[in-house]
Amino acid sequence: MKSRTDYLWMETKRPREFVNLTGRVRELVRSSGIQDGLVLVSAMHITATVFVNDNESGLLKDIEAWADRLAPPGDYEHHRTGESNGDAHLKNLLIGHQVILPVTEGDLDLGPWEQVFYGEFDGQRRKRVVVKILGE
Amino acid sequence: MKSRTDYLWMETKRPREFVNLTGRVRELVRSSGIQDGLVLVSAMHITATVFVNDNESGLLKDIEAWADRLAPPGDYEHHRTGESNGDAHLKNLLIGHQVILPVTEGDLDLGPWEQVFYGEFDGQRRKRVVVKILGE
Amino acid sequence: MKSRTDYLWMETKRPREFVNLTGRVRELVRSSGIQDGLVLVSAMHITATVFVNDNESGLLKDIEAWADRLAPPGDYEHHRTGESNGDAHLKNLLIGHQVILPVTEGDLDLGPWEQVFYGEFDGQRRKRVVVKILGE
Repeated sequence: MKSRTDYLWMETKRPREFVNLTGRVRELVRSSGIQDGLVLVSAMHITATVFVNDNESGLLKDIEAWADRLAPPGDYEHHRTGESNGDAHLKNLLIGHQVILPVTEGDLDLGPWEQVFYGEFDGQRRKRVVVKILGE
Repeated sequence: MKSRTDYLWMETKRPREFVNLTGRVRELVRSSGIQDGLVLVSAMHITATVFVNDNESGLLKDIEAWADRLAPPGDYEHHRTGESNGDAHLKNLLIGHQVILPVTEGDLDLGPWEQVFYGEFDGQRRKRVVVKILGE
Repeated sequence: MKSRTDYLWMETKRPREFVNLTGRVRELVRSSGIQDGLVLVSAMHITATVFVNDNESGLLKDIEAWADRLAPPGDYEHHRTGESNGDAHLKNLLIGHQVILPVTEGDLDLGPWEQVFYGEFDGQRRKRVVVKILGE
């Protein structure tokens, strides 16, 4: 069994931002030498999301508007601690915290429109995404 | 380490359909010879879902109605591209894109009511689900 | 490749309860001797959830209230079978059924506020969570 672990640092300029990680994850997979396995791509913070969807700018706007409708900014119990990002915690649960992508023949094994995104909902600070590849 | 990768082709007759994949995934696990490991079952398209729940027809209707309430068909930015399936992209995020099932003693290691489903929300076309088993 | 599989029995006193599993999962990882790998933490029942978020009591109340807003108790088709827990099945889909945590240098590899929780939504009965560690 081989493994490789990397941490991608994220620091978005805006409070909210979608970052397409597919190219970077693919590069890590290719340079790992692992031919067959699984790669975990996971936010290490609970106010950001990692998800797979289509790289289409209109759709990314739809996702943001939808997340705001279902997990709106507002007053939360969590704000008693001085925080103001309760909605971002809920968006993490709604959209998802992580994905597992298959590695086959030394490469990411994705469908035609599958792209992996980092979705920041409380940005403008340094955060990490862990990428761990396991296989052989 | 051993691995086995299969692709299940799906082509539902209706635009929306739930397909119970448990038997097929179990068969792949048993015939892989892998005694202990993990199996990824993941949609390769972002307008379909893969999830674990109970195989009860009323509940599956509830899931469809619930997904329609939280991610309704309607007008989305994504439709500026000519697409009309914006709601299916959001349902993928709501319900989930993939599951990881444990493999123990050469078999799927599921609780009493756990079943794995493919949930199609933009069907009547050929799509794939990847099943990758990793273990020993 | 090494693996270790454990089952955590849950029996919450209340119908709904959040249980922080981080310490128990960490202990299993440390005692497994696995230095590098992945650990699956997954509900074996479909009316409970497993998720990663912040261990802050106000936030946990927010999560429960939010889940009740988006997947409210009520009348569901599933209740034709005599069950009354339709909302708990939907909360499982909303919040999530499982997480995969990275194992690095013999320990859970989590961000500063990442904690793994069991979220019970139909409790007061014995249920299991499977913890499977795979790695080397």
